[in-house]
Parts: sequence; structure tokens; C-alpha cells
Amino acid sequence: MPKRNLYLKTISVEEAYSKYFELLNKQNILRMDTEEVKTVDALNRITSEAIYAKCNSPLFNATALDGICVESKKTKNASEENPVILKLGIDYKIVDTGDAIKPPFDAVIMAEDVIEIDDETIKIISPVSGFENIRPIGEDIVVGEMILESNHEIKPIDIGALIAGGISKIKCYKKKTVGIIPTGDEIIDMKEDLKEGDIIDSNSYMIKSLINKTGNIGKRYDIVKDDYEMIKAKLKESISANDITIINAGSSAGTEDYTVHILREIGEVVVHGVSIKPGKPVILAIVSSKPVIGLPGYPLSAYLAFDLFVKPILSIKNDLSEEIDAISSKRLISSLKYREYVRVKVGRIEDKYIAAPLNRGAASQMSMVRADGIMIIPQNSEGIEAGEITKVKLLKNKSEIDNTLISIGSHDILMDIVSDIIARKYNNITLSSTHVGSMGGLLALKRNETIIAPTHLLDENTGIYNIAILKEMFCEGKVSLIKGFNRIQGLMVKKGNPLNIKNIEDITKYRFVNRQRGAGTRVLLDYKLKLLGIDPKRIDGYDKELSTHMAVAASVKSPYTDCGMGVKSAADSMGLDFIEVGVEEYDFAIYTKNLNDIKVQKFIEIIKSNELHDKLKKLGGYGYENVGNIVNI
Amino acid sequence: MPKRNLYLKTISVEEAYSKYFELLNKQNILRMDTEEVKTVDALNRITSEAIYAKCNSPLFNATALDGICVESKKTKNASEENPVILKLGIDYKIVDTGDAIKPPFDAVIMAEDVIEIDDETIKIISPVSGFENIRPIGEDIVVGEMILESNHEIKPIDIGALIAGGISKIKCYKKKTVGIIPTGDEIIDMKEDLKEGDIIDSNSYMIKSLINKTGNIGKRYDIVKDDYEMIKAKLKESISANDITIINAGSSAGTEDYTVHILREIGEVVVHGVSIKPGKPVILAIVSSKPVIGLPGYPLSAYLAFDLFVKPILSIKNDLSEEIDAISSKRLISSLKYREYVRVKVGRIEDKYIAAPLNRGAASQMSMVRADGIMIIPQNSEGIEAGEITKVKLLKNKSEIDNTLISIGSHDILMDIVSDIIARKYNNITLSSTHVGSMGGLLALKRNETIIAPTHLLDENTGIYNIAILKEMFCEGKVSLIKGFNRIQGLMVKKGNPLNIKNIEDITKYRFVNRQRGAGTRVLLDYKLKLLGIDPKRIDGYDKELSTHMAVAASVKSPYTDCGMGVKSAADSMGLDFIEVGVEEYDFAIYTKNLNDIKVQKFIEIIKSNELHDKLKKLGGYGYENVGNIVNI
Repeated sequence: MPKRNLYLKTISVEEAYSKYFELLNKQNILRMDTEEVKTVDALNRITSEAIYAKCNSPLFNATALDGICVESKKTKNASEENPVILKLGIDYKIVDTGDAIKPPFDAVIMAEDVIEIDDETIKIISPVSGFENIRPIGEDIVVGEMILESNHEIKPIDIGALIAGGISKIKCYKKKTVGIIPTGDEIIDMKEDLKEGDIIDSNSYMIKSLINKTGNIGKRYDIVKDDYEMIKAKLKESISANDITIINAGSSAGTEDYTVHILREIGEVVVHGVSIKPGKPVILAIVSSKPVIGLPGYPLSAYLAFDLFVKPILSIKNDLSEEIDAISSKRLISSLKYREYVRVKVGRIEDKYIAAPLNRGAASQMSMVRADGIMIIPQNSEGIEAGEITKVKLLKNKSEIDNTLISIGSHDILMDIVSDIIARKYNNITLSSTHVGSMGGLLALKRNETIIAPTHLLDENTGIYNIAILKEMFCEGKVSLIKGFNRIQGLMVKKGNPLNIKNIEDITKYRFVNRQRGAGTRVLLDYKLKLLGIDPKRIDGYDKELSTHMAVAASVKSPYTDCGMGVKSAADSMGLDFIEVGVEEYDFAIYTKNLNDIKVQKFIEIIKSNELHDKLKKLGGYGYENVGNIVNI
Repeated sequence: MPKRNLYLKTISVEEAYSKYFELLNKQNILRMDTEEVKTVDALNRITSEAIYAKCNSPLFNATALDGICVESKKTKNASEENPVILKLGIDYKIVDTGDAIKPPFDAVIMAEDVIEIDDETIKIISPVSGFENIRPIGEDIVVGEMILESNHEIKPIDIGALIAGGISKIKCYKKKTVGIIPTGDEIIDMKEDLKEGDIIDSNSYMIKSLINKTGNIGKRYDIVKDDYEMIKAKLKESISANDITIINAGSSAGTEDYTVHILREIGEVVVHGVSIKPGKPVILAIVSSKPVIGLPGYPLSAYLAFDLFVKPILSIKNDLSEEIDAISSKRLISSLKYREYVRVKVGRIEDKYIAAPLNRGAASQMSMVRADGIMIIPQNSEGIEAGEITKVKLLKNKSEIDNTLISIGSHDILMDIVSDIIARKYNNITLSSTHVGSMGGLLALKRNETIIAPTHLLDENTGIYNIAILKEMFCEGKVSLIKGFNRIQGLMVKKGNPLNIKNIEDITKYRFVNRQRGAGTRVLLDYKLKLLGIDPKRIDGYDKELSTHMAVAASVKSPYTDCGMGVKSAADSMGLDFIEVGVEEYDFAIYTKNLNDIKVQKFIEIIKSNELHDKLKKLGGYGYENVGNIVNI
């Protein structure tokens, strides 16, 4: 066997953090350079020192409104019975908002309160007191007053105030440049023709965006092959050209992971391996008095390690995302060896927040794309129970989460389309779908963790969909069924159906892939097998469970599987053939009291809309005679 | 009198909004153009359509870890007693994370579980099942799956997922260009030598930043003088060159406000005047099928009108700032005619949020710079009582507010310096100071609306500072005094002291400006007057009250005032002369139970620090013998 860095000894996040940052501080590496920036160009920059006003605003005593300026003492006795007559140029001057008021004038009367006698004469019928309607010099900003403190991110209003305070330039922290080196023989640039074994480099662009998002400058280098000398040369180039260097992948214990050896040769590796999941094989090094970070290859590991270790180097501002208490909708077992960061969907039901864990794999970018928050399972914890209250760090604004319609249950591509239509039609409503199968959805509804539960569960005795199971699970009158779509289920087989699979009976002869227990498609399969008297044990792959139609389709596309069951749209989108098995009813279970929720109303509007039906027509395999009808259970 | 647009008829925000946007929609003006953007450049852009994956991720069945790939059936019987021997090339292949796995291999064994016999032979002692440690094709992203929905703002993780899903270009909304025309004879560009009557144009830069902050492109034009034809020409130029045009000022009812007349001539004025405060004189117009908005001249009016009317034109995303329930610390009387937007400081005391209203003037930019939120007083409401719970829209993240140390009470420039030191030293602590005078601060403490209350109140009987009043106001043992600074109080007079003012007695001869009732400086003055037997009625300006040292200094600098009382640093910063009157003690009252609050601990650390003392030495006028000592009351 070739040499590997087999036994990666990991340390805790805190230990890694303090070890690395102590050293960075000691060597004065974190010192931020500053530069002068024009105030008008300073949006989003960070002040490196407090800024004190150089002039007053207003610069002079100024009228606060349109009218005339007068000497207040001359108006003292004005009344309706005894009006005071004033002469232009002698007793008063006409002024517009912002005009300077100078002695002897010391008050302003608003235009509406002035009675015109002729072009040069007016009368007034009530007195004004000294300084009435005058904005005194420095009312808003006084010379020497602190306008902004250090470490402040410049907002539009700040720019207005700085200019009004006579500040044309400000001292800001310099942006940092970060070199990003993607490495790996198998890594390729995005292109049209991909072949097996190719891995598109997406990490380096994600990392570059993460850097740019912090207001600093990411600089991506071309992909470097797994070659000790080439990687070393590129590292040296980036280190000398940038403030910070990130090298992606090559940080774990594989045969071709040269990074840690090179970094040891040219500098100091302070940390290799942190007990977090995802993110474990991170490298924290210092080379030529500059931070060099090896980010792991799995996208989520890279993302998290960036968040934990690169952000604090780049930015002096803390992460301000909000933390809430949420109820975990699932039991999560976690290793005692790691602190785990679990991506979750978060929804609000009444006054509780529910966190539904997404795919925990380090490779699952989509889990992060779809996530509303991160749930942290501490090291030394065995996990979290379903129903347990836990801290969730939000990735979205809370009000965005409050305006989310939660759907947990069976998966269908039409839910994606509905969510897109909602996003286009309504600014402030979002549909969040989590796919756990029909039964999983109904159990979530039972626990009050979802608003709607898409379901297609067949009653084996009556052949009727959804109603029987709801009657069984819920008290009478509590829940309703929003009727959805008729959906053709069938067998997906390879393009051209090379094995000539014709029906359910045939699957005993070939390699099958199944859906998980509780999925409506699984229930339908089991029902059909029972009708046909086929023992599931006879099916090769009956125990191989996948959790979405699309996953089944992808598996059938692969060389390991010959057939699987699912909906036509999934087969079509993967270019598979499809053999119809039956029509089922894909409906939405909901607590009756929630039917009036504005988000639910909009949802019903959309499932009934021609816009959706036209799109489903194009996909094929759907019927919608009763869509939107409410069935009370 | 010259012609004015005197009686501006205003309508409600809702009415204005629906009137204007109905018309914009009807004329199809809000339609957003789209463009293709490279995925790698799409950070922060908004998708104009849903994006579906074009390839699977992973592209193929891939090993999830470093090890060897095998045929699972060959490992079926492996155990410690009965190890299975495998040969390289025949029974297994060495694989690194991400490598493709092809038939006949269908499982991966991790490197750590492999026992090496020689370079080409290994043994294993436990079986693997089919597909163990393999990431199946499409595990993360399946062809045809929706990666992003429409109207989604692209985040770094999205860029990673899009590239992994084979998407190299995406359809986004085009950025909009917005022309900004500053107008007014008195408006000037920022420069060194300002003369009376000059108003620096800060609004146009603030507006440009507001536009850029939304991701669109602000284009500022040079200042246009108040000339009908010049303004008309510039308006036409901007309207033809940009998607939207904003003209600043000239929207109210002044003598030189041509804007509305010009807009009526070249297009349609849909709304002129909205019943909001600040922001009333906004103009919403359509010219050549493009939105033209006249924003009012006062900075806060412009800011608010932008938020209400320009943002919805620019961006399809809703304002997502959070709304909280907060207790108003002050009674606010508001006109029935307007909906008023009051800027507030927000602080958390135990589990309540307290909102302290800031300066309500439309010209007060600093009120917005310092604001943590906006409290909305509805039209048809007479105002809000102190202690009343009210909705506050946050301008900051809630966690930022939770980490704020609230100080309400007497003002001293040293509080600015402390807040700057805190901002530089601690990422996650902010000091928020509101200035209401010593007594105002103690009353706020009594109502539990502040953590610390800076105070310098003299007991006229004993001549001792702060302790007597605290004993009177609070139960024994409840509060403590954090000793602060000795501070020299005195008379501020014009530079060179042209009137030769020598002492308190002299102020009866000249024009004075006073501090508000409850301010420590006022108490000190009254005490001195009593000692000297001077009747306050003899002082010209005794009733003219200002609320900070700096405001008094600015007033003394103006031609209307000869002298005022305050601290030396304020006099110095305005270039005034200073005549010492006495030394007082500027301390910090606090509930004893809050002394252990980490934020308070940091505050005490800083007021004791050499860093602060060095800065105060430079200012002059401070002593700090007992600073940081705790006196239990």
C-alpha cells in the first residue's frame, strides 16, 4: 500500500482556534493595514479609527421652513385684535428652508401664518419667540462630535452624515487579498463534455465568493495537478502575492495528499485535523509570516472550515447571525468524537420553531443551499432526541422564516415548481419542502411540525388513497385533505428498455432499487406484490432504499441497477423509459384550522392555477380533476 | 409675496403607494429586464427564473473515502477467525476519495480497516455490504432537480451547487440605473472653505449609496441651480439615460421649487405630498414611461421616502428587517395628520426591549446614524405613552442589540471615546449612549430602562455629588455608584473673551444659554446662583435650554449668545475660551446586581485603562483618582 497520513490526530475547535490565533497574534500577522478612502466611495468599508466632525451641520443658524424671518421682540404683542404690521427689508425678509438667519433677525414665521397686505407689507396675528423655527448652528452635528466609531461598517446614512460633518476622506481597513489554489488530478474546470471520474471544480469559486462576500478580494489560481513540486511552486507564488492563501483539498489522508508535507517543508503547520463534522481535515499553517489554510475537499467541509477559521482572519466583525431555540424534528445520533454542524430547515408553527435536519453528508451542497440554519451538536454529545429543544444558528432573517409555508412529506417535482411560482408571485412567502415520504409527513403533521403533508398512501383494503390513513391517525374533524393531483406511477428502466421489462412480475428477474418504508411508492409496490402473490425476498435490491424519485431514477441510470419504481417526470428527466403501473392520488393533509392561513390560501390558489397545470402538462403523467377541493376527514 | 405651492394636499402612504404602483404596473414600467450572467460572477445577483441541474453530482458512483474498492460478495464471510485475502488488480483497487467505482466493484473498505500483507496482497476481517462507502451518482444533485428558484439572491454556496450541477450561466435580473439630480442655489459640493448659507450636498451621495446597496447602479449628476430650464434639461437627460430618475429637493412648497411644475409639464405627477413624517413633500411621477421621484430636501425625509417608494421600484425583494415589541422610554406626542417614523435606540434589559426615541427632526442625520430601529406612530394616533409597548422595526441584527451596553444620562465626550475603545477592543460589545441629563438618566434607571446612568448631581446641602440623590431615589442596597471622573465645569465664552467675562456674576450682564432642567450642569449653576444670591430672572437666556455641552458650545460660537456653562472639552473643541467655575464628580449609577454583567465589567476595565486616561489628558479638564471604585449605596 502506498504511504498515507493515516492517523490524523484531531483537536477541538477551541483548541485549534486558540493555538492558531495566538501564534498569528504573537507574530503580529493579524494586524490590519489601513488606507484613506473617499467618503463618497466608502459604502460597506470598515472604519479603522473614530471619525470626528470637522464642521457643524447646519453650518449656521438656518430657517427650518419656508416663510419670513423677523425680530421676535417686534412680534411680542401681535394678536387678532391687534395685528402687527411688518415691512419688507426693514422688519422682515423672505426665506426658504435652509436659508441663513442673521442678527437682528432671530425667529421665522411660516408662510401659512403670514397675511399679505401688499408686495412689501404683511401683517401677523400671533407672536413668535426667539429662535422659533430656526435650526441652530450645529443642531445635527457639532464640530468635534464623534460621527462614527472604529470598526464600523459604513452605511448609506453614514455617508450623508460624514459629508455634512465636513469629512471628505476616512481611514478604513485595507481589503485583504486571498489566493485560492484548487488542486487534484481528477479536478477539472467546468466544461460541456464530462467523462466518468471528472470532478468539476466548484469549491474554488464558492470560496472566492465567500471571500468577496466579506468585502475582501478572492483571487483564484488555475487548477494544479497532484505534483509535489508544482503545488509547492504555486503555493509560494500565492503566498508572496497575497495576504492569505487557501489551498483546497489535499488536506486529508489520501495517497496523493501532498499539501501538509509541503507546508511543513516551507513553513509551520500549526493544526492538522479538527474534531468537527463536516470539516475535519483542515490545515492551519503559517508560511513566511502569512496564514495558509488547507480547506478540505468536500464542499460542506470547506464551507464550514472557512466559516470557522478563515472568516476571523479576514474580518474584524463578528458573525451576527441570530440563534434561536428550535425543536428537532428528528432523532440525530452523533459521534462523541466530533462537534457536528447539521444543516436544518426551520419553520414556525404557531409560536414554536421546528428544525428539520437535512442530509448530513459533507458532500451535500444542496443541504446548504436549502438550509435555513445550522444546528450544532456538541462534541461529547451522543446526539439529539426528536422533540428536544436545541440551538439553531439562523442563515436567514427570522421574518423570512416566519413567512415560510412548511411542507413535509412525499416528494414530487411539482412541489419544486409550486415553490418557484410562489417565489415569483409573492415577495414575502416561501414554500419549504422536506422529503421524508408520505408516512413521515403524516407523523410530522401529527407532531405539529408541518403545515401541509403531501401524501399518497393507499388503503390496501379499499384501494382508496389517503382518507383511510388520516381517519386512523387523527381525531374526527381535526384534519382535512386538500385534493391534489392524479399521478402515474410506474417502473423506470434503462433507455430503450434493453431487458424488455414489462410489468411488476419482471422485477424479480433483475436488479431493483426500492423506496424507503413509509413512502407512498413503496406502499403501492407492496400492495401490487401482495396482489400478485410475489414474495419481496425474491427481489434483488428490495432492501436497497432511496428517498426520492429522482434518486431512484439516477440509480437506474447507473450500471448497478436495472429498474425502480417512481413517477414519470423523474424517469423523463433522466432520459429513462417508463412502464405505467397505476394511478395514485397525491394530496395534501392539513389541520383544518390552518386552511385559512394566508400562505395556505396562496398555495391552494397556485395548485389550481393554469400556470402550474400548463407546466405539468409539459412534464406529462399528471391529472388534476379535483385539485384544490377540500375533503374534511 | 412670491408664488408658493402653499397648500400641499397629502394622502396616506397606502393610498400613494397603490395609486403610483397601480399606474406603473398598468403601463408595464416595473417589468424587470433579464440578462445572462456567468455563474462564477453571479454572487448577490437575483435569479429571474428557476434553475434546474444539467448534470448529476457526483457524476458517477464515487468512493466516499480513501481505501480500496472490492466486490462486496467476496467479503461476505470475512471475520477475525476467517480473514479474506484479496489480490491487487484482481480483487481490489486502491482508491482515493472521489475516485469512480465501476463494476464489478461495488463497495469500498476504508484504508484503516485494511491489513497489509505485502505490496499486492491484503486481508480484511469484516464484510462490507453492497454500495457501502460509495456516493451514488446524483447523490447530491440529480439532473432536472431545481437548484434555485426564481427571485433568489445568489449566495456563495449556491455558486458551488450551480457549478456542480453543470450550470455555467444563469438568467438574472438586469441591474437598474438610477440618475440622481441634486438641485438648489444654496447647495454646494464638499470643499474646504465653507461660507454662511452654504449647504453641502450630502443627500445625493447618501441616495447613491442607498441605490448601490440594493445592488443597482446609482449615477449622480452635478448640482443644478434653481433654474426652470436647466432643471428641465437635466431631468430629460437623466430620464432618457436611466431606468429611474431621482431629483432631490425642490419637492416642497418653497418659492424656488420648480420641480413639480416641470414634471407636470413633461409628464404626469401621480402623487405630491404623503402624510408621513419625515418625508411629506415627496413627488411620485411618470415621465416617458419611466419613474421619476422627487425626494424631499431634509436628509431623513429623503431617506424615508426612498425606503418607502424607490426601494419597491428597484428591487423585487421585500424589506426583511425584523420587527420587535419594545417599551417606549418616553412619551411621544404625534400629529393626527401624519404617520410618523421615529428613530430609536434599542436596548435589552433582562427580557424586555427598551426603545429610546432620538431627535425627531427631519434634518437630523445623526439620529439615523445612531438609530437601532424605527418606531412607527400611526396616522390618527395622538402618540405613545412612556412605558407603552410598541412595534419597532430593527435596523440592526437582534444579537447586536442584545450585546449592547445601554447608558442613559448625562453627556460627556468621554462616553464617545469609551464607545470607540470598546468598538476597537471587543467585536461583540457595543456601548450605546443616550443623553438626557443626569436626572433623566436616574429616572430611566429607576424604570429599569438603562444599565448605567452617568450622573453628576450635587447635593446642595452637603456639597457631595451623586450619593445623596441615589439614597433618596433608591432602596438601600439596590444600587451602586461606579466612581468616574472629576470634571472641571466652567463658563464658555467667545475666543479671546472679548466681553471680559470673569465669573458667574458676570453672566447677568450678557446673553446666556442654559442647560435643561435635571442636567447636572444646570444643578451646579443653580447652586452657584443661590450661593451668590442671584435671581435667575436677571439672566437673559436662562430659559433658553439646550441638551448637551456641545450644543451650548455651538450656541456660544454663534452671534446670538455670549456665554454658557459646560465642560472644558466642549469649549476646546469649538475653539472657545473657558473660565473654570468648579470641579464636579461624573460617576455611573447602576443596579448592584448588574455589576457582574460582562459588558459592565469591560466598561469598568476601560474607564480604568491608561488608554482612556491618556486621551483624557490630551483633552484636559479631567481627574481620575477614584475611577472604577464601587460605592454601595
